[in-house]
Amino acid sequence: MTTIVVGYVPKPEGRAALHRAVEEARLRGARLVVVNSARGGRDFDHEDAAEAEIELDEVRSQLAAAGVDAEVRQLVRGADVAEDLIAVAGENAADLIVIGLRRRSPVGKLILGSNAQRILLDAPCPVLCVKADETD
Amino acid sequence: MTTIVVGYVPKPEGRAALHRAVEEARLRGARLVVVNSARGGRDFDHEDAAEAEIELDEVRSQLAAAGVDAEVRQLVRGADVAEDLIAVAGENAADLIVIGLRRRSPVGKLILGSNAQRILLDAPCPVLCVKADETD
Repeated sequence: MTTIVVGYVPKPEGRAALHRAVEEARLRGARLVVVNSARGGRDFDHEDAAEAEIELDEVRSQLAAAGVDAEVRQLVRGADVAEDLIAVAGENAADLIVIGLRRRSPVGKLILGSNAQRILLDAPCPVLCVKADETD
Repeated sequence: MTTIVVGYVPKPEGRAALHRAVEEARLRGARLVVVNSARGGRDFDHEDAAEAEIELDEVRSQLAAAGVDAEVRQLVRGADVAEDLIAVAGENAADLIVIGLRRRSPVGKLILGSNAQRILLDAPCPVLCVKADETD
């Protein structure tokens, strides 16, 4: 069984990536590994952890409803999002990574962030890039 | 029937993109539009055009052998590769664009070129990025 790894954050681009990843997993009969990276350190306290866990429970419910064989991982290990995704893709010999691209600039113009670039360049498998405005 | 648009150049990254695009087209029962962009102008003479046509005939043979419903377009209209791909994807209401990422730097390090970035940011649909060393 092939594995698809998707980077998830509870934002439009994360939801767009998850939505498409579920479609791709169904299409391929693939297993889905959802990676939610949170940075550890001072910014991330017990309350953040509790909120993140509630969000991920909702994601787990959605995946169960979609009938996709999925695993949700919350990584808080200080590594950045790009490293996390690439590591998980490698460990699972993933066939595909799905990431969302976000709008960042003040006027809403999309720019390609450094995490996205690093994932594209260093991923051990092809990377599917989804923009938030395509499904939200 | 959905459409997949793939950017093709007769280089490792172009062949990697085409290879994966054929797999995706089979998986989805999709039609494939292969876009070979060549810049017009002084650099592109009759001999270049003839060589490009021979290469594209080989691609057409490969696609026919793969049993994929495909169209091969050679675009020489002065527009750049990113514009060409985005325009063709828009015209065909494509479900997916597949592009190859190339190694460019003198030491073989992969860097994300400006065409790839523009395709990712401006594409009307998700973009699948394939690295040359994944299939070659």
